[in-house]
Amino acid sequence: MAKEITNRSDDYSLWYNNIVRKAGLADHSAVRGCMVIKPYGFALWENMKAQLDAMFKETGHVNAYFPLFIPKSFLSKEADHVEGFAKECAVVTHHRLMNNPNGSGVVVDPDAKLEEELIVRPTSETIIWNTYRDWIKSYRDLPLLINQWANVVRWEMRTRPFLRTAEFLWQEGHTAHATKNEALEEARMIHEVYARFAEDYMAMPVIKGAKSERERFAGADETYTIEALMQDGKALQAGTSHFLGQNFAKAFDVKYSNSENKEEYVWATSWGVSTRLIGGLIMTHSDDEGLVLPPKLAPQQVVIVPIPKPTPELMEYINPIAAELKAKGIRVKVDDNDQKRPGFKFAEYEMMGIPIRLGIGKRDMANNLVEVARRDTKTKDAISRDGIADYLDNLLIEIQDNLLTRAKQFRNDHTSFVDNMDEFKEVLNTKGGFIMAHWDGTTETELAIKEATNATIRCIPNDFVPEEGKCVYSGNKSKGRVVFAKAY
Amino acid sequence: MAKEITNRSDDYSLWYNNIVRKAGLADHSAVRGCMVIKPYGFALWENMKAQLDAMFKETGHVNAYFPLFIPKSFLSKEADHVEGFAKECAVVTHHRLMNNPNGSGVVVDPDAKLEEELIVRPTSETIIWNTYRDWIKSYRDLPLLINQWANVVRWEMRTRPFLRTAEFLWQEGHTAHATKNEALEEARMIHEVYARFAEDYMAMPVIKGAKSERERFAGADETYTIEALMQDGKALQAGTSHFLGQNFAKAFDVKYSNSENKEEYVWATSWGVSTRLIGGLIMTHSDDEGLVLPPKLAPQQVVIVPIPKPTPELMEYINPIAAELKAKGIRVKVDDNDQKRPGFKFAEYEMMGIPIRLGIGKRDMANNLVEVARRDTKTKDAISRDGIADYLDNLLIEIQDNLLTRAKQFRNDHTSFVDNMDEFKEVLNTKGGFIMAHWDGTTETELAIKEATNATIRCIPNDFVPEEGKCVYSGNKSKGRVVFAKAY
Repeated sequence: MAKEITNRSDDYSLWYNNIVRKAGLADHSAVRGCMVIKPYGFALWENMKAQLDAMFKETGHVNAYFPLFIPKSFLSKEADHVEGFAKECAVVTHHRLMNNPNGSGVVVDPDAKLEEELIVRPTSETIIWNTYRDWIKSYRDLPLLINQWANVVRWEMRTRPFLRTAEFLWQEGHTAHATKNEALEEARMIHEVYARFAEDYMAMPVIKGAKSERERFAGADETYTIEALMQDGKALQAGTSHFLGQNFAKAFDVKYSNSENKEEYVWATSWGVSTRLIGGLIMTHSDDEGLVLPPKLAPQQVVIVPIPKPTPELMEYINPIAAELKAKGIRVKVDDNDQKRPGFKFAEYEMMGIPIRLGIGKRDMANNLVEVARRDTKTKDAISRDGIADYLDNLLIEIQDNLLTRAKQFRNDHTSFVDNMDEFKEVLNTKGGFIMAHWDGTTETELAIKEATNATIRCIPNDFVPEEGKCVYSGNKSKGRVVFAKAY
Repeated sequence: MAKEITNRSDDYSLWYNNIVRKAGLADHSAVRGCMVIKPYGFALWENMKAQLDAMFKETGHVNAYFPLFIPKSFLSKEADHVEGFAKECAVVTHHRLMNNPNGSGVVVDPDAKLEEELIVRPTSETIIWNTYRDWIKSYRDLPLLINQWANVVRWEMRTRPFLRTAEFLWQEGHTAHATKNEALEEARMIHEVYARFAEDYMAMPVIKGAKSERERFAGADETYTIEALMQDGKALQAGTSHFLGQNFAKAFDVKYSNSENKEEYVWATSWGVSTRLIGGLIMTHSDDEGLVLPPKLAPQQVVIVPIPKPTPELMEYINPIAAELKAKGIRVKVDDNDQKRPGFKFAEYEMMGIPIRLGIGKRDMANNLVEVARRDTKTKDAISRDGIADYLDNLLIEIQDNLLTRAKQFRNDHTSFVDNMDEFKEVLNTKGGFIMAHWDGTTETELAIKEATNATIRCIPNDFVPEEGKCVYSGNKSKGRVVFAKAY
């Protein structure tokens, strides 16, 4: 660990891969496109998961678990859905291996072919709505507000750790409602929860908006998205919440009898965020020295390094400080390893993005001081040991705020209003970022712009301003600006 | 819900299935052998998981996540291991579907055949040890104490919800050590953690012991097990911890250089408990009225039912009681549904196994009382409203203790010492349970007894008493009694 990494300006993509590896977040695996999430990366995911899970439960949701496998025929029942997922499926065709009759090793047993192939879930709408048919009979059974934490598989051709992997971890909410309005409200409420999580916990500002028809989830009538901006000027779709209308209810024949005893199809939503968020976190805050983590999600918030080494006297000064921090609820680690030198440790914790590092030596002890180093600003201060727990508690809040402010500033600096395709391309080729431009509302234009620039419509923003204008591409009438960007 | 269920004495197996369905723990799914874990069952699993996870972390373990898929060739690398798992594998052979050229629906795209088939993990030793090869270079990298929470698939032919399902949820610990002793200690320490969890949280007494060679995990040099006794006299293997020797290190070439800079193979353990524990919990405590849950794991510990319905005056009396309980950390639910009658609610909460039910009516209110009904003993008491939180807090402890005591009593009553095969069969055919009998130590005898009685050696108990004796089957010399039973 703590080896040098590529600078962002030299090769952003390599920088990202370096961070993932050197900070100990994830590793390649022997299975194409699948990653190993290492303990440090998983601890980060556990913190994100715990917070999201609490937010889902506060809003009335419960967790459940549905099968990993989806019968092939289920996937076909909703036309758009199968179109969206059929091309990247892991397909289980057999249920047994046997000794190779021609020699060593094992081979698939041809006699153990499944009658119907099973798909490893790429998402669970179909298996869940097939189950909901048994669970929903009357309006009294609604709403059904269920979430599941699970692994899913999409056989992507080009993969990047966290950002795009064949297998990833996520949560998927699947709710059922009696009315259209209630389902729409649910989808929008979760959209807000995602935005709040991104900003308040990840310190990652997002634009909230609706996807264009072309970019909607396969099977949705409306997809709400939160879009974050990465340091290389590319957008990251960080979480989506779908209003599914009655599409899955019709595909799986899920009806309820209303209070007048009349049968109606059920309304649906689904919504998810995944380990992709870790990729977003990395690319929002980190720098050329390594990972930078927001305090609220950091597995360790403060690390204490005895300088130059953990002598008994020094530890007598340090241990009570650590105890005070713990008592305050701060996640603190004392590095009392006497085999590694402080410089090595400093580089290591910088790489790991621990928000605050305390360096404590003999002189600090003599002066009743503590050296406090911030990861975000790389500033160092000598702080009185008295009241250090309160000081650090406040500093963690300050760092959290600073990361959000900095990221917002970056986003603002990289949001451009353009009125023609020359400007559009110019911005894309120089600083990138979000481009606010008029669009005529047609899929044809959307595709043509993508063709010409590689940029896509990230969303029609929630704070869409009705404004007469001309489409940046076709010159046709437009009702307002939408958000374009190149995206991950 | 709250429909009648079969009595245990009439059909134990049907009674079990009734409980699972009627208490809302799990449901069948459209995929053969896979269950849907319903919200109430999943809440129970979340509580078990949280406690186990805390115990693993207290003993120095961290969580990580490894791929769902295992390349077929990996499975073959450890001879016993592949022998143990090859016959019940879900095999992924293709990565794409296509539109059926002959009509509607989708079919497997023959052009998307994988070069090497992937197995959906039945357990992760192989993929993990293949990864550890990169992570372990020197003795400084050891020990590696990693756990993962995951889903696994074993294509069982006969399945029962929770007890034996094609897909199940579990945790699997995989640790790597520099010495044999350290690995052995780890396997035994986790064995103790499992036993402590079973007894202190599930109120399920267990016998701790080692498996006979024949019953060991495929690839292990030693398997430690906790064996619980179900109410029908059958044993349930509830958790196993394996000392794997250097078998996987050799299969995957994982060596470390020791402090003298000499290369040695790494020593390993693995250990797991699964959603099967929920089946054990059901069959240890529940009765003909439904589920009975130990307070420490119950999703709701106390339910308050206003009698006959939630009038404003009654709720003014009830709400502060609920608030007091919450403040005490008790998981309480107030049922203010005014559509269902108290009798219906009582039956429902009895079915769900909520440890304590409070019934509160006008008269209770007038007399400053609360009616307290225990699920375990089915007794009711009128208790003063003052100090009710402390009273219930203590009562929850008493119920937890009572469940364990009762289960221990049952186990003691169903543990028999026999000295010949007639007695052996007689006990098995009448009351079942654990049978303590002399065994000559050979696999041949073990198999012959299984053939003759369907009973297997559950374990060679930790508190094995060296005692000269004659094998109950062969008459050959035996060094002590081992534990036999029919098992799930």
